This record gives sequence, C-alpha cells and structure tokens, in this order.
Amino acid sequence: MRSDAIWPSDRMQNLFGIDVPIIQAPMAGVAFSEMVIGVSEAGGLGSLACALFTADQIIEEVETIRRQTSRPINLNFFCHRAPKADAEREAGWKRVLEHYFVELGLDPTAVPSASGRGAFDSAMCDLVAELKPNVVSFHFGLPEKTLVARVKATGAKILSSATTVQEARWLEAEGCHAIIAQGLEAGGHRGMFLTDDVSTQMGTLSLVPQVVDSVKVPVIAAGGISDARQIAAAFALGAAAVQIGTAYLLSPEARMSPLYRQALRTEANQTAVTNVFTGRPARAIANRIVRETGPLSDVAPDFPLASRFSAPLRVASEAKGSTDFTPMWSGQSVRLARERPAREITQRLASETLAILSTC
Amino acid sequence: MRSDAIWPSDRMQNLFGIDVPIIQAPMAGVAFSEMVIGVSEAGGLGSLACALFTADQIIEEVETIRRQTSRPINLNFFCHRAPKADAEREAGWKRVLEHYFVELGLDPTAVPSASGRGAFDSAMCDLVAELKPNVVSFHFGLPEKTLVARVKATGAKILSSATTVQEARWLEAEGCHAIIAQGLEAGGHRGMFLTDDVSTQMGTLSLVPQVVDSVKVPVIAAGGISDARQIAAAFALGAAAVQIGTAYLLSPEARMSPLYRQALRTEANQTAVTNVFTGRPARAIANRIVRETGPLSDVAPDFPLASRFSAPLRVASEAKGSTDFTPMWSGQSVRLARERPAREITQRLASETLAILSTC
Repeated sequence: MRSDAIWPSDRMQNLFGIDVPIIQAPMAGVAFSEMVIGVSEAGGLGSLACALFTADQIIEEVETIRRQTSRPINLNFFCHRAPKADAEREAGWKRVLEHYFVELGLDPTAVPSASGRGAFDSAMCDLVAELKPNVVSFHFGLPEKTLVARVKATGAKILSSATTVQEARWLEAEGCHAIIAQGLEAGGHRGMFLTDDVSTQMGTLSLVPQVVDSVKVPVIAAGGISDARQIAAAFALGAAAVQIGTAYLLSPEARMSPLYRQALRTEANQTAVTNVFTGRPARAIANRIVRETGPLSDVAPDFPLASRFSAPLRVASEAKGSTDFTPMWSGQSVRLARERPAREITQRLASETLAILSTC
Repeated sequence: MRSDAIWPSDRMQNLFGIDVPIIQAPMAGVAFSEMVIGVSEAGGLGSLACALFTADQIIEEVETIRRQTSRPINLNFFCHRAPKADAEREAGWKRVLEHYFVELGLDPTAVPSASGRGAFDSAMCDLVAELKPNVVSFHFGLPEKTLVARVKATGAKILSSATTVQEARWLEAEGCHAIIAQGLEAGGHRGMFLTDDVSTQMGTLSLVPQVVDSVKVPVIAAGGISDARQIAAAFALGAAAVQIGTAYLLSPEARMSPLYRQALRTEANQTAVTNVFTGRPARAIANRIVRETGPLSDVAPDFPLASRFSAPLRVASEAKGSTDFTPMWSGQSVRLARERPAREITQRLASETLAILSTC
C-alpha cells in the first residue's frame, strides 16, 4: 500500500523509508521476527526488541527477518544504567514476597543471580554496525555519547522515548532523529529517564502537542493507540507517526502463554503502572502481585534486579495455571485490539485511518 | 458564530441548544458568572459550579448571568455521599499535618468544623426547578433516583462524568442524556464513583473511544483538552463535544489569587492527582503538601473532610506569599492555555478547530 500523498505528514516515511507511518512497538519477550516481518511487509516499521536476547539470538532473528523482507527494520535496546546492588533492599523485598514463595513451594533463598536484561554496550554497538538496521531505538534515554555516535556512524536513524517536555528537549539535543512521545497509557516499561516520579507523568493527549511545540524533529505518538480513531487523533495532535504495541498483542505472531492471551481478552481486567515485576515502572494487567505488593513499591529493588524475584514466582504459578505473578504487559486500549495477523492489523489501521482523515 | 454544518457532529448542539460543542468545565471557586457569560455568549455552554455556593449565592450568580445572556447554561453539583466521621483517621491526619500547623503558628486543634462542600439535595432540587437551567451536570455519579427524576422533570438535560467504561454504562442506564468521558489528564476532582482505584484510571485518548463504543448517548471528551489540536483529536476519537477547564484558567474571568495564577504560568510546575486537599483524588500542581504528604495518602480523611485541615494551612501560608498549601487545580495541558478572555478563548478554539478539521 502506497499512500504517502494522503497522510497528513510524510516526514517519518521519508526519514525511515517506509510507506505507512506506523511503528510496531518493540515488545521484549512478545514480539519476535515474525511480527516484525508482518508489520514491515505492510509498509510500517517492524521493531525487534533486543533487551532479552543474546547477540547470537539477535543475529538469528535479523537473519530470519531479512530472508523474508527487504523492508526497513528497527532494532530496539534498553540503555539503563547498571543497578546499584543493595543487599538491605533485596532482603526487604524478599520479606515482602516470602509468603508467596512458601505458598508456591519455592525456596526464597534460591532466586536466580542474573536478571537477563542487558543494557546497550560496545559489543551491541558492533552488532549494530554488522547488521545495519535502518533504525535503532533506545528505551530509558540514550547510551553514552560515544556509543550514540558509533550507532549514527552506521547510518541508522536514532529514536528514543520522552515522557516529559524536558526529556524530549534532552533527546533532541543529544541528536535523536525523531522522538517518541510516550503517554502514560502505554503498555510495558515507561521510557522515563530524567525523572522517576510516575505521579506527574502525562497522558498521550496532553503530552504529544506539548512535545511537538518543544522540538523540531518529528514526533511519534505512543501510548494507548490501538485503533484508527486514535491514530487520526495522534495526527491531529501534531504527531508525524504513531508507535503501537498493544494493538498487536492479540495477533498470532505475539508469543505469549495462553494464560496471558486469555487475560488480555478479559474485559474486566484493568492495567496499572507497576514496578513490582522488574523494578522500573511498567504498565501491566493489575493481577495479584500488583494489587498486593504495589502497584508502586518503595521496597522493590532497582531495575532489572526485581525480576530475579518475580521470575521464579511466575514460573511456579503459571505451572499451576495461574497468572497471579505473570507480568502481563498491556496498554490501556487492549479492548480495541483485534485478533488478526500483524500484517493485516497494520494494513487495516492504515486504511481505516486514511478513511477517517479523508472524511473529517 | 454558527457552524453547525461543519462540526463532525451536531448531537450536542441540538441537545443543548448551543452553537459550539465546547462545554466550559465547572470549576468551583474559580469559575463564576462572568466566565459562564463569556463562554455562553461565544456559543459554547457555560457552567456554574455550585458545590461551594449557598442557595442564595447560586440565585445571585444565575441572575447575573441571565441579565447578560439568554444562552443556555449548565448548573453543576457535587453528589458525593456523606462522609463517615472517623475520629481515629482524623487524629492520624492531624499527626501528619501537625508540624505544618506549628510552622505556620496555627493551633492544630482549631480546625473548622465544616468543610463547606454540600452534596446535591432536595433543597437544591427545588432551586433547579426555580432557576430552570438548560443543563444540570453532576460530579461523583448521580444523586438518588428520585432527585434525578425531579431534575429531569424540570426539562433540564442531565450530564455526569465517567472515568471507566463501567461508569459510563451505569450513567447511561440511570438516564444521563450525555456522558462526559473524563481522562486522567483532567484538572480538579476526578468524577470516579464506582471505583476508588486511581492507579487503573485511563488517559483521555484511551478512554474516549472505549466509552463511545459502550454507550448510545453522545460522549463529551474531557481531560487535558486545552487547544484546537486536542479538540480535533477528541472528535477523531468519536466525541460529540469537549469539556474544557484548564484552558480558561488564565482568562481574566478566572477568580484566583495572583500566587495561583503565577504558578499556572510557571513552566517547571507539574501536576499530580492528589487527595491531600479534600480527601478525594483531584489533579493539582504538585506543591509542597502534595509532595510531602501525598500525592495519595491512605491517612487523609474522607471527602470533603480533609479540606477542614488543608484550608487553614492554605490561608496562613498564602498570607506569607507561599503556595505550599494551596490547592492549585490544573489539568495536564496548562502550558497550552492562553491569557485571553473566556469569550475569545472559546471563539478561537472553535475557529481553530474547524480550520484543522477542514484541512486534515
């Protein structure tokens, strides 16, 4: 589908070499090569979340993608600072969770030593130089300047998320080619990096125009955008593109347990921003651990250390058919998601948005 | 300005007898007759917040309005249930605030006995029958069925705010003529009434289309809407009108202290949803009392009892030129508000929105 002429803006299409200004949100643990292929083939920008992958896994996923599409792709990395080890804090968190370990027949002293979430580093930078993705997006700010310079030298366009006007200005000053304005409706980890105060975070409708007014680079609206009405709204707010995650969660390409998938379909579920799974605030379905220990805990260890404690609880409880301890990332518009393949979702979102824009 | 033909929907114009689908949000303590007159004369719907008024004050304000405009108006009432007196809770809250009383030279035992926020009752119902406003809007759900029936019998159209799909369905079933979908960007008190869990509340961009899909009556988008881009976005989301408060806060008609007005102009200020001023969650600038005792406190007394404690702190601290204890209600888009008269704000929002809608 080629529709450059009728989208309100073609800035992102030109910058990324895509046809449809829809970026599939990287969703670590859920979105793999098959989703990237579907979205990119529909003319959008598929994103591969690399945070939970080894270098070999990234290479393998990208090779799989490249065998099936020649379209532009985005590689996404976390760039958090290394957490401070804090034995006292960990002991406190263990005390909060201990009765769950006992309930599930687990040994609370036997938590894994590693969290499996690496931050972007020099080795990953070498990998980017080798794989040459068209776009590299970061979450939690940007890596150090020399790494950013090396990524830019590969020719990749650089993106990151802002949750405040201040963060947007910072990212522009540091050389981002475009900025994702992430409203608090968004599922998964908030990209916030100059503040840790969740209480002052803005909704997408408020944030996007304020960011648009504050930077010169194009702005990508994110957070709660799951249908064509919301994409049209994002353009009205001044965005040049949208980043969409939750709308793809019910696609067959989304890899998740049947329990998680069923929870996403359950209308009564609600989401909350919680730090109890990983240590950083992220939006997920408000299940038992979120309600009982959060949603925001002062005791949870720094990101990503908290995931060492939640992971064994999750595994044991899922084995019993329960999602009480499963991080079920979701944005606020999951009700609007459709159970269709990623390619079709992208095509429909594009054509329905253009239909709205042409009649309004 | 007549523009029925070019707004995407004329449902609200027809329902209320107005020309412009912009409702000025009732803002108790800030918006008085002069703001209502300005907005209604511009073709929108001016709203008089009655929560802090006596019956005589309401009559006086309405008489002032009626002398200067024959346009439709909205009278707004709180309809909270009477709070439970809880001596232990009040003692706990006093302990939290005691050092502020000492700091300001106040006697912590001498808090006022009344909070001054009356809920809609039979006497107010008589007043509505006498004053015959075109629209009556409620906050915190609806009053009891017999009162709703009496208000409807006066010919008034009835509105209330929903913060969830469940609340929207409830309001429709109870006979509301239209529903305000209030996203969490909104300034002032959240209208939530079937839940008290702020953590699961939705942003406007997520909430509005989900409410539109769930009810048959027209939906009014509210929360963070301060400029024409956001109004156009609300229509794209399926709203038939918008309710706007914060955009009027810098108008000369907004009655507030110079301290509050200056704080609204201060770019570095942020807002948070807090219950420390009144006992109910409401969005305000995150000042000292919000940051130090909230934003959400488990100890604050039920609405409106907490205001008995915050009021004397506010008065004493404002006398010293400080806003440390002032409830400075504001939505998340105050940066987009303009310092113009209410009538001109309304006219400009309407014409700029129509310009966006005609070119998108």
